[in-house]
Amino acid sequence: MRGLYLVTDRAVCGHRTVEEVVLMALRGGAACIQLREKDVSTRDFVEEAQRIKAIMAPFRAFLIINDRIDVALAVGADGVHIGQRDMPYEIARKLLGPRAIIGLSVETWEDVERAGALDVNYLGVSPVFETPTKTDTKGHWGLEGLSRIRAATRRPLVAIGGLNAANAADVIRAGADAVAVVSAICAAPDPYQATRELNVIIDDSLALYHR
Amino acid sequence: MRGLYLVTDRAVCGHRTVEEVVLMALRGGAACIQLREKDVSTRDFVEEAQRIKAIMAPFRAFLIINDRIDVALAVGADGVHIGQRDMPYEIARKLLGPRAIIGLSVETWEDVERAGALDVNYLGVSPVFETPTKTDTKGHWGLEGLSRIRAATRRPLVAIGGLNAANAADVIRAGADAVAVVSAICAAPDPYQATRELNVIIDDSLALYHR
Repeated sequence: MRGLYLVTDRAVCGHRTVEEVVLMALRGGAACIQLREKDVSTRDFVEEAQRIKAIMAPFRAFLIINDRIDVALAVGADGVHIGQRDMPYEIARKLLGPRAIIGLSVETWEDVERAGALDVNYLGVSPVFETPTKTDTKGHWGLEGLSRIRAATRRPLVAIGGLNAANAADVIRAGADAVAVVSAICAAPDPYQATRELNVIIDDSLALYHR
Repeated sequence: MRGLYLVTDRAVCGHRTVEEVVLMALRGGAACIQLREKDVSTRDFVEEAQRIKAIMAPFRAFLIINDRIDVALAVGADGVHIGQRDMPYEIARKLLGPRAIIGLSVETWEDVERAGALDVNYLGVSPVFETPTKTDTKGHWGLEGLSRIRAATRRPLVAIGGLNAANAADVIRAGADAVAVVSAICAAPDPYQATRELNVIIDDSLALYHR
C-alpha cells in the first residue's frame, strides 16, 4: 500500500454522493479507496460497494471494505480494513484467502506488537493527529509515534487521522508509505483538485524520503 | 425447519445473559437458535457466536446467525437468516454454499412471490401478529396471511411476531412448520419452563395438523 488512500464518509461528502467523490478522487490519482459505512443495511452497503467497484474498474486502484468481510466477499473487493473491534485478523485471513489485502488499525503499542506476528498487508496508524471524523480512539500517535512504529516493523504503514496537504510530507518523512484522508478530500470544495495536490506532495515525499 | 425457534434479543433478556437464556431454551427443547445482534461490534458478535456455539454443542439444534454472513462463516454456524434489507439471497447462497440453511423473511406478497424462485431453506413469515420487539415491518400477516402463504409454497414456514403459548397452536394449524419467539422465552420468568410449555403445544399441534 503506497500513495494516497481515501476513506469515505458519507456524512462528510456534503452535497456530493460518495460515488461522485470517489470518481473525482480516482481521476485525481488516489491509489486506494476504503469504503466505510456504519449505519446502513447490509443490502445498501453491498449495493453501494457494487456501484463503487464499477466506477473503479477503469482505474488502477484498490477497493478496500471497512470491517465487513461479508460485503468484501459479496462484491469481490481487493480486501478489508479491520480495527481492533472488528473480525479477529486470523479469521479474516482465513475467510478472504492469502491474496486479499488486509489492513489492521493499530491504536496502542500493544496493538503494534501483536500485529508484528501477523501477515497483515499494512498497518493503519490511527490516528496520527487528532481528528473530528473519528472520536473513539485512544489518544493520537503524533509524528514521533509514527516514527517509532516505522522503526519497529517492515510492514507498509498507512497513516490516518487529521492528515491534509499541510502535513502529508511530514508523515511520509516520519515513515508512512501511504497517507489516508477523509475530510481533506470528501469535504474539499473540489475533491479532484484536492486529490491532485495531495498526490503531488505524497509522490514527491515518497521519492525524497523513501527507502 | 420444524419446532420451536428462538430468536435472541439481548435487551429482552433482562437480568439474564443471552448465553443463559439460550442454554435454558436448549434444555427445554428448542430446535433452533437465531442469534440476532444489531448494535455490537463485529468482534463482540463473533465472540458471542463462538460462546453460543460451544453451549449448543451437546444439543441437536441449529445455530442461525441473523444477517451477518461474515459472522456465520467465522464461527461455522449452520446458516443465516436474512431479511429483505440484508445480503441479496443469491450472494448469500454463493458465499455460504449449498449445505447452509438460509432463511428469508417475507413481509409482503411480492416477497413471497420472489422467494418462490429461490432455493431458500425456509421462509420467515414476519410478523404474524403485531409485536413490540420489531417495529420496522409493513403491517402483519395474521393467520389468514399465513394460510395464504402456506397454500402458495412448499417451503417450510417459520412464523414470527407476537407468538406465545396462547397462539402457537393456531399458527401451526394455519400452516407454520416452526414457531419463532423472542419475548415468550427471553422475557419469561423461567425461560426453561416457557420453552417446555411451548414445545409441548408445538409438538402436539404438528402431530395433529401437519401434513
